[in-house]
Amino acid sequence: MSELRAKPSPFLNVLDGFPQDTPPLWMMRQAGRYLPEYREVRAKAGDFLTLCYTPELAAEVTLQPIRRFGFDAAIIFSDILVVPHAMGMNVRFEAGEGPRLDPITDRAGLEALRLLLDPAKVQPVYEAINKVSAQLSRETALIGFCGAPWTVATYMIAGRGTDDQGPARMMALRDPDLFQALIDRLVDASIAHLGAQIDAGADAVQIFDSWAGVLDPASFDRWCLRPLRRIVTALRASHRNARIIAFPKGASLEAMERLAHLPLNGIGLDWTVDRTAARERLVDKVAVQGNLDPLRLIAGGAQLEEEILSIRNDFEGTRHIFNLGHGIKPETPLAHVEKLVEKVREKL
Amino acid sequence: MSELRAKPSPFLNVLDGFPQDTPPLWMMRQAGRYLPEYREVRAKAGDFLTLCYTPELAAEVTLQPIRRFGFDAAIIFSDILVVPHAMGMNVRFEAGEGPRLDPITDRAGLEALRLLLDPAKVQPVYEAINKVSAQLSRETALIGFCGAPWTVATYMIAGRGTDDQGPARMMALRDPDLFQALIDRLVDASIAHLGAQIDAGADAVQIFDSWAGVLDPASFDRWCLRPLRRIVTALRASHRNARIIAFPKGASLEAMERLAHLPLNGIGLDWTVDRTAARERLVDKVAVQGNLDPLRLIAGGAQLEEEILSIRNDFEGTRHIFNLGHGIKPETPLAHVEKLVEKVREKL
Repeated sequence: MSELRAKPSPFLNVLDGFPQDTPPLWMMRQAGRYLPEYREVRAKAGDFLTLCYTPELAAEVTLQPIRRFGFDAAIIFSDILVVPHAMGMNVRFEAGEGPRLDPITDRAGLEALRLLLDPAKVQPVYEAINKVSAQLSRETALIGFCGAPWTVATYMIAGRGTDDQGPARMMALRDPDLFQALIDRLVDASIAHLGAQIDAGADAVQIFDSWAGVLDPASFDRWCLRPLRRIVTALRASHRNARIIAFPKGASLEAMERLAHLPLNGIGLDWTVDRTAARERLVDKVAVQGNLDPLRLIAGGAQLEEEILSIRNDFEGTRHIFNLGHGIKPETPLAHVEKLVEKVREKL
Repeated sequence: MSELRAKPSPFLNVLDGFPQDTPPLWMMRQAGRYLPEYREVRAKAGDFLTLCYTPELAAEVTLQPIRRFGFDAAIIFSDILVVPHAMGMNVRFEAGEGPRLDPITDRAGLEALRLLLDPAKVQPVYEAINKVSAQLSRETALIGFCGAPWTVATYMIAGRGTDDQGPARMMALRDPDLFQALIDRLVDASIAHLGAQIDAGADAVQIFDSWAGVLDPASFDRWCLRPLRRIVTALRASHRNARIIAFPKGASLEAMERLAHLPLNGIGLDWTVDRTAARERLVDKVAVQGNLDPLRLIAGGAQLEEEILSIRNDFEGTRHIFNLGHGIKPETPLAHVEKLVEKVREKL
């Protein structure tokens, strides 16, 4: 499927090694609450997980931002906590509260996890990918995703998001063997989940390491870099043409340089990354994706247009995919997204 | 006072340009809840701000960690929110909740602030410094401090700590003139507060920019770097021998390199900073301070000793002050702090 679609997609071309005159564009969380048509489907579905697990609805909200803005890539509507859910954990999304899990605190909790992902949880994701893939034009790529083992583990151990994911950091320091066993499970689950998404029609996959920034360098190498290497290596062995983007939010450029030595196609940059330095140190190895501050998109006005131009200039002539440096926020005005699309596609 | 004390203090020697055989050592939040003698005084004082504003008690808790561990520097017990409090804001510390302020949302809120710091709030801080200074041996330096304008502003606008200090980032984007006016007030207040602390007996001052890491590079330069430059320049003009450390928590090494061009004596590194890169890019310009992960100090054991040795080796022969990469946590075992002191002072 990806072979067929590769040529005319600017997004895939950048991942395959070819810079474009205007950078391809998509936005993290582009299928989300800032869209009135999303809120309508979400209300119909009732809760968040029902939306994730109903292929027709997940496909519909995945396609909404493509229809409205013509982004160069769709990203399947799902959640990084689908994987622990499919490993048998209890996962809830409470309104305005973020995710809640029954935390794993000991080896018994780890041993209770399923070795194979529950098909009742993951099959709907693959079905949704299949549906979206069938409806996208060849110009628009489809992205599958998962959370990185470190990031998913932080939620499995804390049972929620915290300031600095201290609970997982403490377990990794106090009981590295137990923590390694959890990471190993998540590496296997991630390989399976990403591979199945590619089989279902995803042209590329993104691995979200949203909490990569809270670790010291030695811990980053052990809990982020090594597991990612195993996933990327296995995925390349099973899916020769897999296109893989890692998004290590909050990681230092030094950490990203080490990551860029993996056989990745792209690295996502958050909004705090120094683009001049990133250009010097990353773009000869990987495509770069990012990195507009989502708050600049909310604020709009002259500063937004200036920053978009600055991002384009900083990465001109390189393999650059335009994106935000983090997910779009629900309060973002639609008119500002329209302005973004216009400015990213304008000839320089 | 600092002239008299400069020579025999390893901490001041490092700031003055001379590496030491074993790095001087202190810990952020070393006067704090992990100490039983602190908890006793804190219980007697009742609330946190009473402790800050009672010179005898503030001096006592400042000295406690020096008596117990013989650190090379004492840091005056106070809080970065003393400045907005002394500017007339309502500041409360609610148990287990962190600080609460009545947020500034518009120009009227800004105009209502005092131009000169309320002596009832800041005089007790200077008195406490005076008391501590009189009781410290010449080997032990005394550090005064304030929050950086950006970081203090984030609390003044959000009224509390948040995930990513979005409220201040939004105000800075939507109404940069109003935000600049607030920063200008805080620059002046910081210069006054730091200068008075030096006059009262502080040998060095540290500027805590705890939220430096949430800004994109252009915003970092405007809201962190520029205000710091004004503070450092003014303080050097009024206090020729001022010794100044900046701690831009979460900032990238690229941002810290720009900061290192200010006439600073030292830069604090959080635990995520790559030490090899920091050594290459900072130590020819400033002393570096840090950067043990406070969670490693809680966890203890072999990993703690290895990491202490690794930090010492990474900065050997440079102007290095040993510290944590963030404040010590209340649950830290005293035995681990004892081990830290032993390992930092061991001959390599």
